[in-house]
Amino acid sequence: MDTKLQAYIDRLNKLNFKEMYNNDFFLTWEKTDDEIEATFIVADVLRYLRENNIDVSIFESGLGISLFRDNSTRTRFSFASACNLLGLEVQDLDEGKSQIAHGETVRETANMISFMADVIGIRDDMYIGKGNTYMHQVSNAVQEGHKEGILEQRPTLVNLQCDIDHPTQCMADMLHLIHYFGGIENMKGKKIAMTWAYSPSYGKPLSVPQGVIGLMTRFGMDVVLAHPEGYEVMPEVEKTAKENAKNSGGSFTKTNSMKEAFNNADIVYPKSWAPFAAMEKRTDLYGKGDTEGIKKLEKELLAHNAMHKDWECTEELMSTTKNGKALYLHCLPADITDVSCDEGEVAASVFDRYRDPLYKQASFKPYIIAAMIFLAKIKDPATTLKAIKDRGTKRRYL
Amino acid sequence: MDTKLQAYIDRLNKLNFKEMYNNDFFLTWEKTDDEIEATFIVADVLRYLRENNIDVSIFESGLGISLFRDNSTRTRFSFASACNLLGLEVQDLDEGKSQIAHGETVRETANMISFMADVIGIRDDMYIGKGNTYMHQVSNAVQEGHKEGILEQRPTLVNLQCDIDHPTQCMADMLHLIHYFGGIENMKGKKIAMTWAYSPSYGKPLSVPQGVIGLMTRFGMDVVLAHPEGYEVMPEVEKTAKENAKNSGGSFTKTNSMKEAFNNADIVYPKSWAPFAAMEKRTDLYGKGDTEGIKKLEKELLAHNAMHKDWECTEELMSTTKNGKALYLHCLPADITDVSCDEGEVAASVFDRYRDPLYKQASFKPYIIAAMIFLAKIKDPATTLKAIKDRGTKRRYL
Amino acid sequence: MDTKLQAYIDRLNKLNFKEMYNNDFFLTWEKTDDEIEATFIVADVLRYLRENNIDVSIFESGLGISLFRDNSTRTRFSFASACNLLGLEVQDLDEGKSQIAHGETVRETANMISFMADVIGIRDDMYIGKGNTYMHQVSNAVQEGHKEGILEQRPTLVNLQCDIDHPTQCMADMLHLIHYFGGIENMKGKKIAMTWAYSPSYGKPLSVPQGVIGLMTRFGMDVVLAHPEGYEVMPEVEKTAKENAKNSGGSFTKTNSMKEAFNNADIVYPKSWAPFAAMEKRTDLYGKGDTEGIKKLEKELLAHNAMHKDWECTEELMSTTKNGKALYLHCLPADITDVSCDEGEVAASVFDRYRDPLYKQASFKPYIIAAMIFLAKIKDPATTLKAIKDRGTKRRYL
Repeated sequence: MDTKLQAYIDRLNKLNFKEMYNNDFFLTWEKTDDEIEATFIVADVLRYLRENNIDVSIFESGLGISLFRDNSTRTRFSFASACNLLGLEVQDLDEGKSQIAHGETVRETANMISFMADVIGIRDDMYIGKGNTYMHQVSNAVQEGHKEGILEQRPTLVNLQCDIDHPTQCMADMLHLIHYFGGIENMKGKKIAMTWAYSPSYGKPLSVPQGVIGLMTRFGMDVVLAHPEGYEVMPEVEKTAKENAKNSGGSFTKTNSMKEAFNNADIVYPKSWAPFAAMEKRTDLYGKGDTEGIKKLEKELLAHNAMHKDWECTEELMSTTKNGKALYLHCLPADITDVSCDEGEVAASVFDRYRDPLYKQASFKPYIIAAMIFLAKIKDPATTLKAIKDRGTKRRYL
Repeated sequence: MDTKLQAYIDRLNKLNFKEMYNNDFFLTWEKTDDEIEATFIVADVLRYLRENNIDVSIFESGLGISLFRDNSTRTRFSFASACNLLGLEVQDLDEGKSQIAHGETVRETANMISFMADVIGIRDDMYIGKGNTYMHQVSNAVQEGHKEGILEQRPTLVNLQCDIDHPTQCMADMLHLIHYFGGIENMKGKKIAMTWAYSPSYGKPLSVPQGVIGLMTRFGMDVVLAHPEGYEVMPEVEKTAKENAKNSGGSFTKTNSMKEAFNNADIVYPKSWAPFAAMEKRTDLYGKGDTEGIKKLEKELLAHNAMHKDWECTEELMSTTKNGKALYLHCLPADITDVSCDEGEVAASVFDRYRDPLYKQASFKPYIIAAMIFLAKIKDPATTLKAIKDRGTKRRYL
Repeated sequence: MDTKLQAYIDRLNKLNFKEMYNNDFFLTWEKTDDEIEATFIVADVLRYLRENNIDVSIFESGLGISLFRDNSTRTRFSFASACNLLGLEVQDLDEGKSQIAHGETVRETANMISFMADVIGIRDDMYIGKGNTYMHQVSNAVQEGHKEGILEQRPTLVNLQCDIDHPTQCMADMLHLIHYFGGIENMKGKKIAMTWAYSPSYGKPLSVPQGVIGLMTRFGMDVVLAHPEGYEVMPEVEKTAKENAKNSGGSFTKTNSMKEAFNNADIVYPKSWAPFAAMEKRTDLYGKGDTEGIKKLEKELLAHNAMHKDWECTEELMSTTKNGKALYLHCLPADITDVSCDEGEVAASVFDRYRDPLYKQASFKPYIIAAMIFLAKIKDPATTLKAIKDRGTKRRYL
């Protein structure tokens, strides 16, 4: 075990990620390349130690607060697993059961739940311009509370999906690719097709496609974003993707053809999302309480979607990818044709063939979240990881 | 303490229960006599150590997932207690708050929640032919996930009540009897009356009477199943009970007379349940979405129940038992005449007299569940129990 | 650290609080002065140790059961924090998800959830004559269960707000005052105005004003209770306040003028509550299921409230307090004029100015709850606190 751990630690020691200590994790593109890589390494080390039955907890007590403003299974259990792995107990802020007064400020609620909170994980992805802003309000509130001596510790905010990015998902996706292709250095020149796909539902968040183009353009990959006309993502994120690609020696291109995107791709990520402009409109209508307007918009969106039922990840399309064997990614759950719906994002036979790698992809999320927390809480991670190994407490007693 | 613990360990060492390691617990009759006895012994040891303020935790981290498809207080808290006792944190899969897509496979959900799950406890008792099947699907899914390297550990499935058996309840009931009568060897020849009783509600699961006749026929007891005509339980389980009785040197008989069943009984277990055939019909109607049909069936069932209001555990009936002092069992909550309803399963004075033993009966359930988990997770339980005692960590700091 | 800890321990050693061991916490006035002071000291020590990264857990396993019959954020998270701090896992008894049978006795439910419970925290504040009574029923039930050998430990009951008192709130308020004014000995002669204030909602519990006059009259303070005519609190509690004041060398007076109460006050606590008599009437109407009567009463109460919109904590009123700088208290959330409502308990500028001290006030609650549990569970707290410090386990690994 020692040699492998030492190799990880040697890699960590070459990186500068000091700013992650006592900090939050909002958007991947707010982090440096070193910080992103450090997160991957720490996630790998935590997994490696756990697989070898080494307890990696760093807290004897403390709470991990979760706030889900949208349904969640995967991310909920990933956050719970990560907190538990590190020694924190999850306490869910269920806004339904809470006495959050009408007009109560975010600042107040944030402090009231955080007296013993080391981490706050939030999913708030439904309204453009809202989720990420809310997370910053919470973070600012607890930072101020900490500064004023109200909170003894500064709770770290982890973005569990906002309107802009889904960093724990996309980092897990990327770590999956790194393992699949045998190292971060092997990503250079790989073609990934992040494409829209048809789904009978509407209004799915944009955070996954945005997160993917915002992150995966940093590793020298050829990132192609494909969608029908009218399904544009946020322009700022496209700008980030372009800059990333330039800096990393890769490329970022756009197309309105799924076929073009799939052609010779090493990786495909076909997934439905709502058009950015429509989501913005919807946010406005909600703000005005215009129920009639919302219903009308939803009908329009579904009709619009239905014009693009041919955007499906079929066997035929898959056969056009690199050696017909591109790695298929999805954040799950997928809309599978003839399984979960009549016509969906992906053909059943394609999905079935990739079931194991898909589950493997998902399995990185708890470790990515744990690594984000670890790097925010531990001043000298390399030393501490070594100490944890030397401590040698078994996770499971034999 | 040492002598008593050693005696338990000596008994364990005479039994063969190797197959329980890395395994699940579905139905008691799928376990050998040695395995059943080992579960009782480990439950007793865990209780004994806890009573002596010895911490018995075997996990530093890890999740115990619970999924209750039916309301629960007793079993929910028993499962939470067992997990906590062993060092696992309970995470409830609330299907309402989850993003379980329409058509999402059990296989997918099972893996997605299990990345750090050591145990999955499921209650799914409402539909004949469904609950146990579902549990096997979950178990198969996570076994495959483990084999494919998606899950680092193999989560153990514990049946917290299905359509066929309620093993944690019936094992707790049996352990209560063993303590009450001073040892497993004293059960031979004891007469137990598992009888139907009237309740103003309908559609109660059959898993308790089935679990009782499936388990208690294994100890040389005279097990009598009594119910009005039309309240038959599953034929397969009756078959199992007959075979068990034959093998154990006891007997399994049936009667349509509560009086006959109570006569000279050492133990009585009067409890309402729905007829097997009606539950099957109901499952079909649900499958077809036939709301009218269900309403009609419910009405019929209630009317049918009402014809048997004389099936009540009265003082008069109790006086006909062995020395008028049979031990009264119930899985709780009971329908008590003049307390929780006008006419119910048991007279208030009978229930009241047995309150303490009833609560004691229930108190074994957390330890039974903990023992099931312990035996599935620990390769050499006798050695580990000894090591836990020698470790000597206090549960409660003094 | 040693000198400071030693000073706390020296203070503890002068007090007699033996009766708190294996006991409950219902009403502050059921506790002796020594017991109240011991709670403050232990709360301070636990906070001091945690601030110095010392793990203060006293349980390796065990459950803290919470039952909230009214919405809660602050108290819910405070209870969860306190349990977690001491090593207990919170398990919420959600009466909606439970199989609590119609007519099931409190005695039964209490025992069924308590097999591994060390603490039970209950909020039940809505009905006069009910909440405190219910808590005693639960406590009696588990005490009996413990005596009968059903429960291996005696769960401690902590009152998280009843119809009479809100001890965890008022003790936290008081500890905040002690810190603010530099010691319990400095409270003598301080004037505190516990006054009613207007709120557009109705039916707020009386437990805070009652708790405040029942507790704060014990430290030689001049406690003034102010409210419009008709907003009387429970007569028994006023009687207690009078006796306390007499014993402590302070005073307890009443007025129907907010202005008079604020005049030259060192501390002000303006907060809405419902009239005691109306709450009693409401309890009766609920008992009878008289929905029409309840609606009528609510309408009357809101109309009655509206006659007293001038009971607002304004800048003008604040300027009449001691040097214009009285400490403003609130249990939160407050009804803030122009923020959470059009006309409320307090002007926005006043509330804003006191935001930090208000949050600080709230921050004592988790430690007060932890101290209550600690004193009920640990036989010789002074020795154990010293041992915990010597044990030196870090709360957060570095």
